[in-house]
Amino acid sequence: MERQDKGLAWMLQYENIAWYEDGVVSILDRRIYPIDIKKVECRTHQEVADAIRDMVTQSAGPYTAAAMGMALAAYECRGRSEAEQTEYLEAAAYTISHARPTTTWRMERITAKCIEAAREALAGGASDVSEAIKECAVNQNNERYAGINKVGKYMAQLFPEDGSVMTYCFAETIVGMMLKEARIQGKDIRLFCPETRPYFQGARLTASVAHDMGFDVTVITDGMPASVMKNEGIDIFTTAADVICCDGHVVNKVGTYNTAIAAKHHGVPYYVSGTPDQGHPTVDTVKIEMRDPDLVLEAMGTPTANRNVKGYYPAFDITPPELVTGVVTDQGVFSPFSLADYGATRDQFLV
Amino acid sequence: MERQDKGLAWMLQYENIAWYEDGVVSILDRRIYPIDIKKVECRTHQEVADAIRDMVTQSAGPYTAAAMGMALAAYECRGRSEAEQTEYLEAAAYTISHARPTTTWRMERITAKCIEAAREALAGGASDVSEAIKECAVNQNNERYAGINKVGKYMAQLFPEDGSVMTYCFAETIVGMMLKEARIQGKDIRLFCPETRPYFQGARLTASVAHDMGFDVTVITDGMPASVMKNEGIDIFTTAADVICCDGHVVNKVGTYNTAIAAKHHGVPYYVSGTPDQGHPTVDTVKIEMRDPDLVLEAMGTPTANRNVKGYYPAFDITPPELVTGVVTDQGVFSPFSLADYGATRDQFLV
Repeated sequence: MERQDKGLAWMLQYENIAWYEDGVVSILDRRIYPIDIKKVECRTHQEVADAIRDMVTQSAGPYTAAAMGMALAAYECRGRSEAEQTEYLEAAAYTISHARPTTTWRMERITAKCIEAAREALAGGASDVSEAIKECAVNQNNERYAGINKVGKYMAQLFPEDGSVMTYCFAETIVGMMLKEARIQGKDIRLFCPETRPYFQGARLTASVAHDMGFDVTVITDGMPASVMKNEGIDIFTTAADVICCDGHVVNKVGTYNTAIAAKHHGVPYYVSGTPDQGHPTVDTVKIEMRDPDLVLEAMGTPTANRNVKGYYPAFDITPPELVTGVVTDQGVFSPFSLADYGATRDQFLV
Repeated sequence: MERQDKGLAWMLQYENIAWYEDGVVSILDRRIYPIDIKKVECRTHQEVADAIRDMVTQSAGPYTAAAMGMALAAYECRGRSEAEQTEYLEAAAYTISHARPTTTWRMERITAKCIEAAREALAGGASDVSEAIKECAVNQNNERYAGINKVGKYMAQLFPEDGSVMTYCFAETIVGMMLKEARIQGKDIRLFCPETRPYFQGARLTASVAHDMGFDVTVITDGMPASVMKNEGIDIFTTAADVICCDGHVVNKVGTYNTAIAAKHHGVPYYVSGTPDQGHPTVDTVKIEMRDPDLVLEAMGTPTANRNVKGYYPAFDITPPELVTGVVTDQGVFSPFSLADYGATRDQFLV
């Protein structure tokens, strides 16, 4: 159970993202970090699913939380017969994977690997397989991080020697990896982070991670990308994605599409990091999650509008491949129109 | 001193925008309305200038506040000699007009008219000309409102019989006028209002006025215009402007340019309401006001980012004429490229 990349910002360390220990999964509450640092403690896998649904963690955080939640499910059914535990874990995997609709396919892959590890441990005579699943969770993270490190390296290679990069929302590990690689490659990068309403992930998370790593960071509102591109000079716009469809459509935090249009208008290349999602051969299978519209009528808990007006809150938007310059994967940079060239048989689910 | 359009929403009634009475100018604090309804009381014209600078009121609010502030200045120097009062009023006009840099030319026009009224009253033997200036303030507002009513009528004529309109920021009287005219013309309009960070004028002000007037209003974040245009269907995007340069460049709340690009991308026409600003024959004379960057690092008073990161807050951005479908004035709709055809000699300064 070795951890990698201790040098990454505090909030990206496994034990801070989501961690199983003694019947509890602790998840860093990213809805409020870094204004307040608190962890949500889940004592059942159902509570883990609820936390994922309620966006206690986001970006790739749910992948770690899901696997740790499976360890907790194993703890819940410890001591039962092998068949009963397997059945319990399968039900838990379903609950956790369906906490949010857009990423279910990847969540199913992660939880399935946890069940595999559990079966092996149960066959070996264990009565509590929670530690075996936790080890599987860490291994899956390490594997993903190794892949993401490659993505970060390819991404940093696209950066100018000295220039400005615009992000959107919080791209989790890839933010840390690409900045680490930028430093290794000696690139002098300024970051502009749109705040990303309604949850301010750009202001709270991306800006914090980049600042922790010693970069020059400027937070802007979500309406400013075009004027910043025009007046301050932006060399690259980059985001991760919740889903990269195999046909090149990018599903990411609502606001990405708006900013990708501004980038296109200014001739700023837009690079998406991640790998094509085999669960979405085309954009037609994507279901955009609609969240509580009232969340748009408040900011950091304070109402911003008359409560009699309506809000509107699709969690994601879809950027078509025409607006995407390249998809930066662990295998290098692909055109969004040629993602079939990506070695899809490789069993990866990077974020 | 007659008031017009009592039917407009509460916050657009003169006495609520800014009002002089007995040595005090009371200005509705639009930074917090409608979450909290309070007025800032100014007891000197310098306090009025400070309130304008601090955005207690905005959009066309400063024009009313400026004129009422001149009435207060007259009260401050009451009883002095005619020459002394005139000198005092001229200094006050300078202070008030320069409270914010972008609209100085219009503020100078308004305060100059107040001084004209004062001179007349002083010549007539008055020792306190505050009431004369207040009457001039109301008359200037009435004149402006009459013009804006025409703008609203032309704007509403562009609306579909049944459709959706996107706004940005808060366009003051024109919002009320165009919605009143839309109703008169029997147009069934849904409004989508980007919230307009960092001050949330779209969420707080535009949405409130439209809701007060009985329209169907949806607040969205500033990152959503493109996806709303794509998925919900928007027939027209419209804003007012802090300045419409005579060469067709539009200076308005930062985020307008971003949204105008999204509109262009989706083939949604963008109509700006107002009149060409003779103080800005071209965009070259426009100075974009930079505001306190920390305002971008908070929302409704709550921090949203680590205070060690930087913020960036240009008050306005500039939309070039290529992105503007038409300028809707009191004389009808003009191409942004042919604003010279607007009867510029008419002594108007509509917003």
